[in-house]
Amino acid sequence: MILDVDTGIDDAMAILYAVNRPGITLEALTTTYGNIDVASATRNSLQILEAAGHSCVPVAAGASRALTRPFTKAGSRIHGPNGIGNVDLPIPKASARDIWAPDFIIELVRANPGELTLVPVGPMTNVAHALMKAPDIAQKLAGIVLMGGTIWHPGVPGIPSPVADANFFNDPEAARIVLKSGAKVTMVGMDVTMKTKLTAPMMDDIAARGGPAARIVMEAARFYLAAYQAQYTDITYCALHDPLAVAVAEDPSIVSLESMQIDVECVGELTRGQVIPDRRRTGTTVPNAEVAIAVEAEKFEALFVETMVMGA
Amino acid sequence: MILDVDTGIDDAMAILYAVNRPGITLEALTTTYGNIDVASATRNSLQILEAAGHSCVPVAAGASRALTRPFTKAGSRIHGPNGIGNVDLPIPKASARDIWAPDFIIELVRANPGELTLVPVGPMTNVAHALMKAPDIAQKLAGIVLMGGTIWHPGVPGIPSPVADANFFNDPEAARIVLKSGAKVTMVGMDVTMKTKLTAPMMDDIAARGGPAARIVMEAARFYLAAYQAQYTDITYCALHDPLAVAVAEDPSIVSLESMQIDVECVGELTRGQVIPDRRRTGTTVPNAEVAIAVEAEKFEALFVETMVMGA
Amino acid sequence: MILDVDTGIDDAMAILYAVNRPGITLEALTTTYGNIDVASATRNSLQILEAAGHSCVPVAAGASRALTRPFTKAGSRIHGPNGIGNVDLPIPKASARDIWAPDFIIELVRANPGELTLVPVGPMTNVAHALMKAPDIAQKLAGIVLMGGTIWHPGVPGIPSPVADANFFNDPEAARIVLKSGAKVTMVGMDVTMKTKLTAPMMDDIAARGGPAARIVMEAARFYLAAYQAQYTDITYCALHDPLAVAVAEDPSIVSLESMQIDVECVGELTRGQVIPDRRRTGTTVPNAEVAIAVEAEKFEALFVETMVMGA
Amino acid sequence: MILDVDTGIDDAMAILYAVNRPGITLEALTTTYGNIDVASATRNSLQILEAAGHSCVPVAAGASRALTRPFTKAGSRIHGPNGIGNVDLPIPKASARDIWAPDFIIELVRANPGELTLVPVGPMTNVAHALMKAPDIAQKLAGIVLMGGTIWHPGVPGIPSPVADANFFNDPEAARIVLKSGAKVTMVGMDVTMKTKLTAPMMDDIAARGGPAARIVMEAARFYLAAYQAQYTDITYCALHDPLAVAVAEDPSIVSLESMQIDVECVGELTRGQVIPDRRRTGTTVPNAEVAIAVEAEKFEALFVETMVMGA
Repeated sequence: MILDVDTGIDDAMAILYAVNRPGITLEALTTTYGNIDVASATRNSLQILEAAGHSCVPVAAGASRALTRPFTKAGSRIHGPNGIGNVDLPIPKASARDIWAPDFIIELVRANPGELTLVPVGPMTNVAHALMKAPDIAQKLAGIVLMGGTIWHPGVPGIPSPVADANFFNDPEAARIVLKSGAKVTMVGMDVTMKTKLTAPMMDDIAARGGPAARIVMEAARFYLAAYQAQYTDITYCALHDPLAVAVAEDPSIVSLESMQIDVECVGELTRGQVIPDRRRTGTTVPNAEVAIAVEAEKFEALFVETMVMGA
Repeated sequence: MILDVDTGIDDAMAILYAVNRPGITLEALTTTYGNIDVASATRNSLQILEAAGHSCVPVAAGASRALTRPFTKAGSRIHGPNGIGNVDLPIPKASARDIWAPDFIIELVRANPGELTLVPVGPMTNVAHALMKAPDIAQKLAGIVLMGGTIWHPGVPGIPSPVADANFFNDPEAARIVLKSGAKVTMVGMDVTMKTKLTAPMMDDIAARGGPAARIVMEAARFYLAAYQAQYTDITYCALHDPLAVAVAEDPSIVSLESMQIDVECVGELTRGQVIPDRRRTGTTVPNAEVAIAVEAEKFEALFVETMVMGA
Repeated sequence: MILDVDTGIDDAMAILYAVNRPGITLEALTTTYGNIDVASATRNSLQILEAAGHSCVPVAAGASRALTRPFTKAGSRIHGPNGIGNVDLPIPKASARDIWAPDFIIELVRANPGELTLVPVGPMTNVAHALMKAPDIAQKLAGIVLMGGTIWHPGVPGIPSPVADANFFNDPEAARIVLKSGAKVTMVGMDVTMKTKLTAPMMDDIAARGGPAARIVMEAARFYLAAYQAQYTDITYCALHDPLAVAVAEDPSIVSLESMQIDVECVGELTRGQVIPDRRRTGTTVPNAEVAIAVEAEKFEALFVETMVMGA
Repeated sequence: MILDVDTGIDDAMAILYAVNRPGITLEALTTTYGNIDVASATRNSLQILEAAGHSCVPVAAGASRALTRPFTKAGSRIHGPNGIGNVDLPIPKASARDIWAPDFIIELVRANPGELTLVPVGPMTNVAHALMKAPDIAQKLAGIVLMGGTIWHPGVPGIPSPVADANFFNDPEAARIVLKSGAKVTMVGMDVTMKTKLTAPMMDDIAARGGPAARIVMEAARFYLAAYQAQYTDITYCALHDPLAVAVAEDPSIVSLESMQIDVECVGELTRGQVIPDRRRTGTTVPNAEVAIAVEAEKFEALFVETMVMGA
């Protein structure tokens, strides 16, 4: 697996989830902008790996902006000024590889044809760059399991659009390139990830039973939850957005999938970044993605807790 | 009630439904383009009223095109070249009033403040014209009960957009004017109307028990159903789009309503005409419409059959 | 001539120019939003007519907003809070007719087929409404001579777009309806009107030699000039935008005209409201307007001064 | 100089011009799609270099499509099925470097800070990729002299938009990235290059006096001219679009330059790819390009002929 992150608190959880799962081999972390700028995302990723004792996982920094617009950092209220809940993290011994993330993706995929699953959990700019430079990798990937999009309009707070999630909203043109690449795409959208809950008692449990990395990540998770509660007093959980995509990449049976033809609106006044499924029975639609439409939330939440405390 | 129609087979049903219901006083029919051009819609409306013995209901012709684009007639496959399933209809003794539909709407609403419900079941161009010329009528209407839009993406055949219904798609700018007018708006969308079914046995029943107008309208309904079946062999019903809006105007309890803030996308590449509800919990949304989210379909279907055969 | 105004200082000049010219019969003034809201434009128009001794010219108020967006009053810095340079004007004895401006245009044009020239010098919303309601008037007008648009990008201060004038920018969809109506259209654009100059000495001359209306209008003109000079100290004149269109309607020879196929961009991010001439030699373009590309500025300026002082 | 080409007949002229000029050191050719697909452009470029005896100039292939849309080959009518007028060209001994064009640009610029001028004469996708991956090169380039855009609307045949040239039209988002990069940009637009003429007698002269490469390129030029004449019988020349940009990179004095703030419209219905200069006197515009507004055409034409026959 290659995990493409904009670390970010739930990205940190996803990283720890990926390195802890026995069934997942994390070949590389590639980083991008989104929850935070790409330099911070890279630093945070190296720090989480260090804390988790996995500093051997190579990290490569990538896109600092979307294909068609500059990046404006907006996420600090939710993810904190450092992108990871103001938690103090160890200074990493490792540093990022001297290769651009899209180039690293191309290199790894070509070296392991049919083997690697790419899991982008931020804006898909790195993946789009790789696909524009090397369209052949679409067929050489085992698949792309992405966190992003939403089929059913989100009723959740803090997102930039009434009908789009942050990742597709941040770079709809990149999302379109991925969806039209011919790669085997699985979409784990925000409407589904919102159903997976991390509550304060679960955080306590993980911090009590887990190792140092788990404790750090749970400290960040408490910041995340408090940030939401500052705005929405009745919220008692944060969602497991990015970890769910990693879990689906390992075992798709945790979600229900429906084959759909989906595209992304790139120019709408109200709908930029919206996933547009074509469910009309026109006879001409060709499914280009497996879309998660439901999740066994309790089963995944238990799996998440169990995975976070592994190796402690 | 003022019924604004683009007659149209299901408009014909709606007209007959409205004149047959004892609880509804149909003050006027106003006509527009959509299923067919406005001249045909006007002729069809007069003919249905004639057949139903209600030629006293005044008819006024209105907009021949959307606010920002010319009308292209596309509907003949579904509604037939004459817009009403090629059924032969009586030559009406009455003719349309010599007043433009939006002007007639303004006149009637100002003459009956607080009394009239406007039920547009085609593109809302006439209503938008009336509201631009006379913004005061928004408050003088008892309400607007519209057929159009769709909150949950339609999976149905024959519609022009993967995420919009034909009425909002045909004139999204007009829909926006209506939604932002301050009038009390109830939206009966295609996602809900699709759940109300008119089957061949129901048509037979109505034709057997109903009067001449009912027989004519059911003949058109058979054309409508056959048109769909020519494309989608597994379809066994047509939907009661426009009649449901008329029924909701008489008795809203037939549907479940949710207060929402909704707007319309006017410029999207894939999303023009899409209804955009803002369900984020931002604290700043202000509901501007009651939106039907479910319907007691069987109850309405029975009511529809019963109403069609009234007065026979 | 029917003059459609958003009065506005240069509209006031255009009104006085029109009533003073012996060769022009002003059948009606119709009013709209733009430089100021429509209610103020209507009041200002009645006051100018009163001051000029032409209160017999009928005035009808029209559109209060563009076809697709509400009006936001922005012009007070240039035209003053009352739209006419804070000049005190006589309370008019006449009031506006009880007919909507687009309806009045339709009525007059149908009553005088082939006779009337329509001269819109604000956003063309009223004309678009009239054409949508009564497309037949396009052929019954002698012509439309409009002030608006710009072929060559304006290098002038105070306009809302780098490539569009205020009138087309305010309602591009209305402009498109006019340009595609089939009417004989003459466009007098801002790139040309900017070449016609009204200087302080000319104002003094007119005020000294003219009647009460001319004095009032020149007082407003001084406000207009001062407003520009407050921002651009090197400016020594204001332009005769609207009066030039009136003059061209009387005598087109004051400008050089080129037949062009023109359209209006309605959705551009930077180009909304821009006039788009198609000058490619594709062989398929069909001219739909005579476009002024040059003006005999000094000749017109002399004509303007002479006309302003007529009847004193 | 690095020359970025979509070879293309006038690109072939530009390549020969660049290798023949004593004052120009051509460090590399980078290739892209546009007049033809990128593979053909690469092959054509290698062949022209071979014919010109400059096969030592390194060639790197780059983008096969625009940032936001796939490439549709449309140019064969003008440039011929092989992109170079169906002329037979020598099989090149050299082949393209095994490096992606944007990477090659980055490598060369970083290795020669302040030294290199980048001359893109096709869609600017390669340059945009390089700037997104390595924003630092904007300041390490001596400058970017681009062929593309048009300030004054083109009246020429065969272009895809009434107000945009083919290069900006093909990838407006890439053009925007270049214009906003902070690099020193000189724009040589189609409105100016159209004034530089290559006539049949000039072609004869060059073919008679020049070397093998010049003869081949003139044969392609005759195809180019004939293609235009097939449509526009009165045309007696083809324009020297791309060579003029190369000449300006060597000696800007051949054109008149004006500092402007320019941007590109990316979403307009009629205006996609249009250069938008902001010439309003707003006081807030900051020039980001030197824009050619006139050319000493005869002087350049003589220089072109002289350069083509060099080294024969």
